[in-house]
Amino acid sequence: MKLLRVGTAGAERPALLDAEGALRDLSGVVADIDGAVLADAEALGRIRAAAEAGDLPVLPADGLRVGPPVGRVGKVVCIGLNYHDHAAETGAEPPAEPVVFFKAADTVVGPDDTVLVPRRSVKTDWEVELAVVIGRTARYLESHEEALAHVAGYAVAHDVSEREFQIERGGTWDKGKNCETFNPLGPWLVTADEVPDPQALALRLWVNGELKQDGSTADQIFPVAEVVRYVSQFMTLYPGDVINTGTPAGVAMGQPEPKPYLRAGDVVELEIEGLGRQRQELKDA
Amino acid sequence: MKLLRVGTAGAERPALLDAEGALRDLSGVVADIDGAVLADAEALGRIRAAAEAGDLPVLPADGLRVGPPVGRVGKVVCIGLNYHDHAAETGAEPPAEPVVFFKAADTVVGPDDTVLVPRRSVKTDWEVELAVVIGRTARYLESHEEALAHVAGYAVAHDVSEREFQIERGGTWDKGKNCETFNPLGPWLVTADEVPDPQALALRLWVNGELKQDGSTADQIFPVAEVVRYVSQFMTLYPGDVINTGTPAGVAMGQPEPKPYLRAGDVVELEIEGLGRQRQELKDA
Repeated sequence: MKLLRVGTAGAERPALLDAEGALRDLSGVVADIDGAVLADAEALGRIRAAAEAGDLPVLPADGLRVGPPVGRVGKVVCIGLNYHDHAAETGAEPPAEPVVFFKAADTVVGPDDTVLVPRRSVKTDWEVELAVVIGRTARYLESHEEALAHVAGYAVAHDVSEREFQIERGGTWDKGKNCETFNPLGPWLVTADEVPDPQALALRLWVNGELKQDGSTADQIFPVAEVVRYVSQFMTLYPGDVINTGTPAGVAMGQPEPKPYLRAGDVVELEIEGLGRQRQELKDA
Repeated sequence: MKLLRVGTAGAERPALLDAEGALRDLSGVVADIDGAVLADAEALGRIRAAAEAGDLPVLPADGLRVGPPVGRVGKVVCIGLNYHDHAAETGAEPPAEPVVFFKAADTVVGPDDTVLVPRRSVKTDWEVELAVVIGRTARYLESHEEALAHVAGYAVAHDVSEREFQIERGGTWDKGKNCETFNPLGPWLVTADEVPDPQALALRLWVNGELKQDGSTADQIFPVAEVVRYVSQFMTLYPGDVINTGTPAGVAMGQPEPKPYLRAGDVVELEIEGLGRQRQELKDA
């Protein structure tokens, strides 16, 4: 299933994208798409039954804002340098174990919402990423099979990053990862049963129409199952938590000088095979 | 005012500690103590008026669990190496600007709740910290005066840390800061009007009755006002967000070998002048 949330920010209603590409209203079935629903097999069963029965009201898509596909995101765990080609372009050695950092849940916005270039930013950069949405509470998972059983689904994430804040201002990367609007998510949450191999997804990103990133999750150093298993050794993952699993090569930081960092007026588009497409216009904060 | 939340985890009710040390039930006045209430001058005025009128029901304190004093914490921003004496004991130079990292809000527990030693942990460490609770949305604050006007109040935080996960496993510090139960908070939120000088508070921490940390916020490299102003340049702070402002000297990591890291059965107590006292027993996860 492709689950999403539509409407004004903070007042989204749950919806489903059906096989014909029509938006169907789920607000008569569940109150929201959030961790509680994703952890509730009965609620997911009701959504599936209603979808198959074909009796969900159609929503007019025109002019309808799409929000992030998960409400009340708990935390956003991010994996750094997780593609061989991206590690190479930054000059870093491939890490021996996953590099973990955080984005605050309040950075999550809809897939087509405005992204703000922070004040005094000179190095705002893009990163298309496969996001994993957790569906069951995960502690000290032991196997890759067990890890994948805790995944509710997948979505497109844009891990917007300010490189000067991230790397040149001391301390950890978090300073350059948590600016307002820095985590567009969506358009859909595609349930895990419809993504048979998360390591075979093409990811692409364009800036002003020019293709910048063109990778595949096959190039991930630590695949999704290992990322989920590994992270669960250090922290508890809850339904509604999101893991951004890293970005392939092609970011601005990896290009020759003058590096083409983002400015107000730029348009970023990104997509992952089967998971939909995002489009953001940049504005000054 | 000293605001708190009492009851079983996840079902706390709001309460007030009155001038005589009695617990008063606030559930007839506000639904919770959270960011929405802290940002609502009218709600805070109702609490104050009810407290002054003396007509709030007394709660029996015996056997009542105290929860974290803020419900629905948004994010927990942490400042590293923010005391001269602590930076010195770790061998680090005093940072040129604040070091920022994150704890997930789901690590927040009550002040006397059990703290779990993570599986495979050999370096679980303690850190008493002054926590700042945000009361107004803060973006790009310009002055220290403006920064302090965005603070709702103060509380005691225990920034429990696993040093091997934090420092020796690659990547950022976040891996050692986000284990389950790693952020006891409380007992009270003391409103900012009752903390005239946040840079003149004594902090102390004991392990099994032995004094380990004995510092003062006067030793902070970046005072509260600068921390709030600085962080607001990189991210938006929302009501109900918490900033842990760093720890003074005396952590296990700073002591001679064999360093006395925490184990199941240890008892940690910590307090900040005027902000109350915590007591946690450690157990294995």
